[in-house]
Amino acid sequence: MTGRLAVVGLGPGDARSLTPEADAALAAADALYGYGPYLDRVPARVAQRRHTSDNREERARAEAALTHAAQGAYVAVVSGGDPGVFAMAAAVCEAIECGPLIWRALDVVIIPGITAMLAVAARIGAPLGSDFCALSLSDNLKPWELIEQRLDAAVGAGFVIALYNPLSRARPWQFGAAMERLRRHLPSATPVVFGRAVGRPDENVSVVTLGDADAASADMATLVIIGSRATRVVERLDRTPLVYTPRAVVEVSA
Amino acid sequence: MTGRLAVVGLGPGDARSLTPEADAALAAADALYGYGPYLDRVPARVAQRRHTSDNREERARAEAALTHAAQGAYVAVVSGGDPGVFAMAAAVCEAIECGPLIWRALDVVIIPGITAMLAVAARIGAPLGSDFCALSLSDNLKPWELIEQRLDAAVGAGFVIALYNPLSRARPWQFGAAMERLRRHLPSATPVVFGRAVGRPDENVSVVTLGDADAASADMATLVIIGSRATRVVERLDRTPLVYTPRAVVEVSA
Repeated sequence: MTGRLAVVGLGPGDARSLTPEADAALAAADALYGYGPYLDRVPARVAQRRHTSDNREERARAEAALTHAAQGAYVAVVSGGDPGVFAMAAAVCEAIECGPLIWRALDVVIIPGITAMLAVAARIGAPLGSDFCALSLSDNLKPWELIEQRLDAAVGAGFVIALYNPLSRARPWQFGAAMERLRRHLPSATPVVFGRAVGRPDENVSVVTLGDADAASADMATLVIIGSRATRVVERLDRTPLVYTPRAVVEVSA
Repeated sequence: MTGRLAVVGLGPGDARSLTPEADAALAAADALYGYGPYLDRVPARVAQRRHTSDNREERARAEAALTHAAQGAYVAVVSGGDPGVFAMAAAVCEAIECGPLIWRALDVVIIPGITAMLAVAARIGAPLGSDFCALSLSDNLKPWELIEQRLDAAVGAGFVIALYNPLSRARPWQFGAAMERLRRHLPSATPVVFGRAVGRPDENVSVVTLGDADAASADMATLVIIGSRATRVVERLDRTPLVYTPRAVVEVSA
């Protein structure tokens, strides 16, 4: 069994945040599998096949890539950000668990990348500087009630919250509902960071308060960070403010 | 005001996971500030000064670097992993908030890196494939009762948990106490991943069950991932098992 499969994290979007390890895997692969906009970021190479699939087809993409690798090829599955955070690595593992036994003999490597919450946080300061959680708002794969329960638990325990997949055409109301729910528990002055398309030409990062946050400010390419009660905004001279969560916790908010 | 300060994430430890953006900042800086073992990873460059400080001295290091940058230099503060996750970015923001106003006029850039939980997760599969939280077990900067409260909340809500700073010489019992607490809530078969020194020559990543996990297996260089009730282990032929958390949640665990 000589087949190899690499699940490669491209990072937030610019080549300056692609690791040498990821770059080498993309260069060495016989074939690339991925969502079109992610594949578009990878330079074309002679004799390398590309298999584009739609955003929602993670499992089918993983199975196609594993089938190809099991024929002896070196196959790379590309992921935006980090493949282990709401992305392709879990889909590949699921496919291996449920697929033919021969897939368990493949050489599978997962190459990490800068996930969106780290890229957005870096642009604005250190909002994830203390304990935090990462939560996907997509209710395609879990019940909405569970998402609400997790939002409540995260706020109750004082975690900063990084929200992935805040909304999409098929999920227009969920992000607004999440913001309403957060407003029940958190002060309206709580900082909220909208980070869109970080590292790409249309990048936009902004800071608002939870009270002023407009759910329409987010789209599929947006990562939202909800501060905790401890998160602070530092105004600066002629520069965007810094948002950070202090490392030390001085009082417990129940 | 021409001073610049970059807070640079080195990633988990090998040059293959250092981003080009981080590499360029390290090459361009007039001076580097950091904890000795992190500075040791950066190639020496002629005419670049190095200021080594101890692990616990984040705030003093940040102030020294800001003072130096305010004199017009280009200063880089290095961090292992990602500077925004339990590392130097928050210390720099704190210092700016509490320091002289002139520090607010500096050009401050934070350059993200692959944080330990992403590196460890990638080595073993996709344990962070669904909602998760990142929690520092250090009670140097927050009360132990709050750490227990956050562990309980995370387990109650079904989050996978990435534990940073599980123990140190000065904090010998905390990780054992955390594992005992988790055993009250989670099945003993829950997968636990110990990831030590990923990307470095002495790397060691292992999977055990919560019931069998030995607190003595962790040290200061270890990142621990505690699975949720949904996390699965996929045995393979002549290979280490894959550990992953499915993207879909089929039932709500209260």
